Amino acid sequence: MDLFALYDGKYYIFSRDGKKKFIRGLGVIDTKRFMDKNEGEKINILGQDFIVLKPNIQDILSAMERKEQIVHFKDIGTIIYLSGIHAYSRVVEIGAGSGFLTLSLIYYSYPGTVYSYDISENVIKNLSEIINDWKLGGNWVGKVRDGREGIDEKNVDSIIVDIPDPWNVVSSAYESLRVNGTFIAYVPNITQVVLLKEKLLKENFKNIDVGEIIERKWVVGERESRPENTGIMHTSFIVSARKISD
Amino acid sequence: MDLFALYDGKYYIFSRDGKKKFIRGLGVIDTKRFMDKNEGEKINILGQDFIVLKPNIQDILSAMERKEQIVHFKDIGTIIYLSGIHAYSRVVEIGAGSGFLTLSLIYYSYPGTVYSYDISENVIKNLSEIINDWKLGGNWVGKVRDGREGIDEKNVDSIIVDIPDPWNVVSSAYESLRVNGTFIAYVPNITQVVLLKEKLLKENFKNIDVGEIIERKWVVGERESRPENTGIMHTSFIVSARKISD
Amino acid sequence: MDLFALYDGKYYIFSRDGKKKFIRGLGVIDTKRFMDKNEGEKINILGQDFIVLKPNIQDILSAMERKEQIVHFKDIGTIIYLSGIHAYSRVVEIGAGSGFLTLSLIYYSYPGTVYSYDISENVIKNLSEIINDWKLGGNWVGKVRDGREGIDEKNVDSIIVDIPDPWNVVSSAYESLRVNGTFIAYVPNITQVVLLKEKLLKENFKNIDVGEIIERKWVVGERESRPENTGIMHTSFIVSARKISD
Amino acid sequence: MDLFALYDGKYYIFSRDGKKKFIRGLGVIDTKRFMDKNEGEKINILGQDFIVLKPNIQDILSAMERKEQIVHFKDIGTIIYLSGIHAYSRVVEIGAGSGFLTLSLIYYSYPGTVYSYDISENVIKNLSEIINDWKLGGNWVGKVRDGREGIDEKNVDSIIVDIPDPWNVVSSAYESLRVNGTFIAYVPNITQVVLLKEKLLKENFKNIDVGEIIERKWVVGERESRPENTGIMHTSFIVSARKISD
Repeated sequence: MDLFALYDGKYYIFSRDGKKKFIRGLGVIDTKRFMDKNEGEKINILGQDFIVLKPNIQDILSAMERKEQIVHFKDIGTIIYLSGIHAYSRVVEIGAGSGFLTLSLIYYSYPGTVYSYDISENVIKNLSEIINDWKLGGNWVGKVRDGREGIDEKNVDSIIVDIPDPWNVVSSAYESLRVNGTFIAYVPNITQVVLLKEKLLKENFKNIDVGEIIERKWVVGERESRPENTGIMHTSFIVSARKISD
Repeated sequence: MDLFALYDGKYYIFSRDGKKKFIRGLGVIDTKRFMDKNEGEKINILGQDFIVLKPNIQDILSAMERKEQIVHFKDIGTIIYLSGIHAYSRVVEIGAGSGFLTLSLIYYSYPGTVYSYDISENVIKNLSEIINDWKLGGNWVGKVRDGREGIDEKNVDSIIVDIPDPWNVVSSAYESLRVNGTFIAYVPNITQVVLLKEKLLKENFKNIDVGEIIERKWVVGERESRPENTGIMHTSFIVSARKISD
Repeated sequence: MDLFALYDGKYYIFSRDGKKKFIRGLGVIDTKRFMDKNEGEKINILGQDFIVLKPNIQDILSAMERKEQIVHFKDIGTIIYLSGIHAYSRVVEIGAGSGFLTLSLIYYSYPGTVYSYDISENVIKNLSEIINDWKLGGNWVGKVRDGREGIDEKNVDSIIVDIPDPWNVVSSAYESLRVNGTFIAYVPNITQVVLLKEKLLKENFKNIDVGEIIERKWVVGERESRPENTGIMHTSFIVSARKISD
Repeated sequence: MDLFALYDGKYYIFSRDGKKKFIRGLGVIDTKRFMDKNEGEKINILGQDFIVLKPNIQDILSAMERKEQIVHFKDIGTIIYLSGIHAYSRVVEIGAGSGFLTLSLIYYSYPGTVYSYDISENVIKNLSEIINDWKLGGNWVGKVRDGREGIDEKNVDSIIVDIPDPWNVVSSAYESLRVNGTFIAYVPNITQVVLLKEKLLKENFKNIDVGEIIERKWVVGERESRPENTGIMHTSFIVSARKISD
């Protein structure tokens, strides 16, 4: 990963490929200007100072266009933890949606490989552009395919599912996973969780676990310290399970 | 990482180095028996079947001795996410304590490097034995040193702090971090958080953020679906901050 | 209510009727001794000091025998608030169980009337003894009856339900309530809530509302201030609804 | 209480005193029209149907003008429960603010008495108008007075405090309470709670308890059942304490 960002309180992420390009919030930028800049150096664009930085996953996601249905920041760490994904992991994602999770999977499995299935050509095309331009890593394979109809990859470390009917990929997920591989689903409704768990039990998945993460942000000062007054109360339940035996 | 485990519902982790060794819960094991076993194969020990597996971070932590004051499972994902740690990261840990976080940092930064400072010789010695035997990775450096008196490493990606007076490492952490590097502290009391935030502001840290994670586990069945009745209500606040400019 | 208690850190509640009686935790007590004592006065029993007090609902519940399945303290205030019960209310309770809610209903509707239906003769008998001895109020009517088979009272202000199949009292509750009267159910599983809501909608109930209360207790001190580490994560969902038109 | 409301999905509360009056949301209403209407009867105003109802505390609060800093609905039940307030209680309120709590105290202590202290003449005047017009009860005494300078009433059952420096009424509250009387404060910041608790300990209050209520509202349907996505994460901590001995 050759990650690069400009920072002025917000993070602007793009590759230094020497081309002119349009960056949301900055306008058209000639990336030649930044070729030889080091981390920490300042750059002036139209009178404003930016710092050259190497962004991390939090910054990368903050630079993405926010759509309604995203995998929420508060859940990404837990999904990564439960999935067991780390360097060199081979991961299959069913339902790429907003791409928030896709980018996270690439970041954590690097230099491994992420295979993203989505039925929308548009979703895969947009993700492809971002991943290429932001130099997130070469080992991403986007597939305009319905993951419920089968998964090509075998012996994968983890399968991450974010579709409305996750129970419909349980069988093919089982076939695709390695022993001790993880199945993770991100599921908004408890009624969906009930159906999913039933199917996971039937297909011989083990260690099935259901949880949700409530994050409380705090305002902290010497005189005023309290949780923030309003916030996210619910996003999705996180369901995890293991394939133990063949 | 050449991770190896036996599984019978619980995970038993050790290296296949051909030596006899004592494994808690299994007794004395001659590891020669497992040298050529593949994932998914069964092994019989004194009449009981075990499956050979490659464990992930969740399994690794489950196999550790539980002491009272641990970094809780529910918080590890969030700490990893906020720290930005992934493959090749260089990480400094101040206060290794139970080792739960140390092992997680090694797992996620692999094949990077983790430097752990702890004032207890015993803590570092025990960790060293586990890390070596479990083949968690070669790039761990344990130091019987007081991190509050200075950090040798420079230009590190992240510094993770789990000591009672985190404000006392803020200055040396700032010096040690690279631009856009992350400072993360795990802090049980809000009164400590107030003191820490004051110091972070004074030392020019930016994007200071305080949160806590409440995890709700669910019991799920067709007829009975509800959150678990009792559980962990609080462990620690997670404080994160960035060094932006030199 | 002629409430009376002795206090030594715990509350011991009984009536001063001049009789000798056995009080759990105190042994046999001759209540003549307390006939003319005023609030705040001390009394010595076998070398230990007790203070004479007028207990409130929290103290009353603290003096009850704790059984497994109780309406939890944290939920009582919310149930009372949503029910609209206050002085002179006429209340029907279906399922008296541990009696925690029964005593609360008597306390808040006083000098109104509470009608408690329970299929267990034992439950009604035990409650009757406590209510009489503790002088909680004369307007309590216990019925060894199955509330699902019909409610005698009409034009009542509120009906409180704590049975495993609350949907089976919805029709008779509707008939029994006054206009703008409240239906409240205490329901452990979300799967039960789904069935109950369906039935409430069908029977023309309005303003159907489902919530749960998470209470976080805090440890507070100058140096250590934090939420308690473990606690109650879930008891029951509280479902409320209104009868609006006849 | 001669409570009266019109209902069309919202509650409009006013007294049927035979006068014409302006009702927010309805315009000018001649209350003579409603003198002889019974609960459940319909009334037509400018082509729209309204039902005549007797409102409860929830409806009463829903009809009040919402200002920013209110005692939140989710907390009222818990405050009432911890205070021990019920029929005939004598209650002192220090800081009437939005009036949400004042009206609740009147409702639950009815036919007792509530004494409200507030330094703002405007607050007391507005409350007086609402309480009189809505016929909430005759035993309310509003005082344009600083409760921190002393409380006239003695032997009261409960003192409820909602001001920025609750520690400054602790001494006079102790003098004013009866034995086993309750002190309740509604406190936004944990830093204020620390100061308050210190003062309560110093003034000999017992059974000091600090908690916060997190309410999760649920969306419930056969296919979609989940907690609401956003909501109130924090309002105030509720601090309760007892005066045990003189």
